[in-house]
Amino acid sequence: MDPFLSPGSDRLVPPPFTAEESPAVDYVLCTHEHIDHLDLPACVTLARRFPQTRFIVPRPIVEQLTVQGIAEERIQGVQPGEELSLGVARLFPVPAMHGLSCPPARYDFGFEQGGGLYRYLGYVLELEGIHIYHPGDTLVFDGLVEQLRSFDLDIALLPINGRSYFREQKNLVGNMDEREAADLAAAAGVKLLIPTHYDMFVANLGRPGLLIEYVRTVYPQLSCYVPAHGRRFTFTRGDAR
Amino acid sequence: MDPFLSPGSDRLVPPPFTAEESPAVDYVLCTHEHIDHLDLPACVTLARRFPQTRFIVPRPIVEQLTVQGIAEERIQGVQPGEELSLGVARLFPVPAMHGLSCPPARYDFGFEQGGGLYRYLGYVLELEGIHIYHPGDTLVFDGLVEQLRSFDLDIALLPINGRSYFREQKNLVGNMDEREAADLAAAAGVKLLIPTHYDMFVANLGRPGLLIEYVRTVYPQLSCYVPAHGRRFTFTRGDAR
Amino acid sequence: MDPFLSPGSDRLVPPPFTAEESPAVDYVLCTHEHIDHLDLPACVTLARRFPQTRFIVPRPIVEQLTVQGIAEERIQGVQPGEELSLGVARLFPVPAMHGLSCPPARYDFGFEQGGGLYRYLGYVLELEGIHIYHPGDTLVFDGLVEQLRSFDLDIALLPINGRSYFREQKNLVGNMDEREAADLAAAAGVKLLIPTHYDMFVANLGRPGLLIEYVRTVYPQLSCYVPAHGRRFTFTRGDAR
Repeated sequence: MDPFLSPGSDRLVPPPFTAEESPAVDYVLCTHEHIDHLDLPACVTLARRFPQTRFIVPRPIVEQLTVQGIAEERIQGVQPGEELSLGVARLFPVPAMHGLSCPPARYDFGFEQGGGLYRYLGYVLELEGIHIYHPGDTLVFDGLVEQLRSFDLDIALLPINGRSYFREQKNLVGNMDEREAADLAAAAGVKLLIPTHYDMFVANLGRPGLLIEYVRTVYPQLSCYVPAHGRRFTFTRGDAR
Repeated sequence: MDPFLSPGSDRLVPPPFTAEESPAVDYVLCTHEHIDHLDLPACVTLARRFPQTRFIVPRPIVEQLTVQGIAEERIQGVQPGEELSLGVARLFPVPAMHGLSCPPARYDFGFEQGGGLYRYLGYVLELEGIHIYHPGDTLVFDGLVEQLRSFDLDIALLPINGRSYFREQKNLVGNMDEREAADLAAAAGVKLLIPTHYDMFVANLGRPGLLIEYVRTVYPQLSCYVPAHGRRFTFTRGDAR
Repeated sequence: MDPFLSPGSDRLVPPPFTAEESPAVDYVLCTHEHIDHLDLPACVTLARRFPQTRFIVPRPIVEQLTVQGIAEERIQGVQPGEELSLGVARLFPVPAMHGLSCPPARYDFGFEQGGGLYRYLGYVLELEGIHIYHPGDTLVFDGLVEQLRSFDLDIALLPINGRSYFREQKNLVGNMDEREAADLAAAAGVKLLIPTHYDMFVANLGRPGLLIEYVRTVYPQLSCYVPAHGRRFTFTRGDAR
């Protein structure tokens, strides 16, 4: 999901592996077209190396992959409400409220720039009875809490880098921040919160320590996991109780 | 390990269950005699409810259980270097540097008050190839890093409440603090650090947020887990890679 | 400026003195009509106790004072661009971007609810060559940095409580947050930043420690002062060099 595998001089964190080094992959899911979420060179390499790899992206940006030479039949454009079976997993696309560029800051679902369709998505993945929410980039918006509650989420990976006037002046479209991520996870009944989007670019940092301080003070029922880069993590049904 | 199950008005966190509500337990391990680590009323209740329960404690404090009426043959007094088999698990007692009371603050292994034996212990538990370190209460001391490295630890549960002159004036014997815990975990090659000892008593708080901030800044190879109270957690051999 | 002197059970911080205990006051300046900025009962008491007291408020809310029985000739309604002489001081009203209530969250200058006039103001006060900015409540908006730079500010008292979806759902209109306040102060060339609006209501807290951490890391040229409640503070021309 949103594999950002191309090295780059502005990355503070190198990729865990490049697309050339990647193990075989069945599905690549991307939430929107920003480079740190839709890494087109990596997608092209994965498509070339692994004939079975399929790509799942918001429908309005399917063309961004086909113009790179990835065959159309390998790409599945999706919209909220369209449930997909991915082998043993099920995928539920959900809306995300984001923007393509700024200033001026404008956060929406991307209808205008998506030809009337959702251009920014999040995904809920169901795998062996565990429900995981990866929103890509999003603010919190009306109806999101209710939608997430309907999935009985176990894990949420939530961005914490926030938004601000000064970020937006530098063309950094914002996200929920540390407190909003914790508030959202708690309101949605999430069991485990994993913060994301806080340590890749020097101008776009979040503060996981602040998240932990806030969660431990306000939401004793919420567990948090702050992983090392590239570390594997196991979550079982028993962990959700 | 160090089950603190008795309710008390000064607890900020209630026990996940009381000794009367506890599921059956094979082994109770205690690291030292402070009430939040050796809960004698809970031990007595567990001993009464579950005939199979055995108690493992530092040898100098075995008598503190027998005077409560727990049969001597159910208690195993241990010292560093004595490896025990506990069913499918193996237990390795290690020294801890702590104190009984203060002021004056005096941190040692408890030889004097232990009749020449270690009165404060930590434990390394090996279970299905996973090595977990629970130090009870301890400062970092010469040789601890080397000793822990020899176990190839996966998980360390480390206290973060720290020590200070003013704490010690209030008879609060100290521990390593947030940065020392992170430094120790990193120096020992731990994969996953779980902070402990930070939210039970109002006068004895630690700051898990500060730990996370420090770890994410200084030790990118170290994962952290900050659990909700009473939440189950799964760690597999794959997670250690 | 924005004296909030009435006791209240939801205050975490009592007033330094009540309106009945207040020393004589020549001018009361209010930035907007929220209770913690325009304390009408306190204004009425001050007006009764001190015949010389005059009230300066955004022009659209003058009537909120007159209906309380404060004589119209004692109230000066102001707008941005109208410079006032207040004895030895000069006052420069500036726009503020805020809102009356939410949800839905809507931040503007209050033209619609102000009959085409600015309903939310900040103030720059010039006193013995020192320029002090008190924005009341505001987000950062286009043009604010340039306007503040034109005053060659010495001191800015900036709110740090931030805004979020979940605050707004509880009818808490937001403000700039800790990082935005620091970014604004630095961009405006402020010498001394004093955080405000962070410890009065349990649902509306800011984190001055986070401000300090961010400023010390990113803006070494910026001093910060975090006062005890009710403590007097001297700033001289020499302090601004």
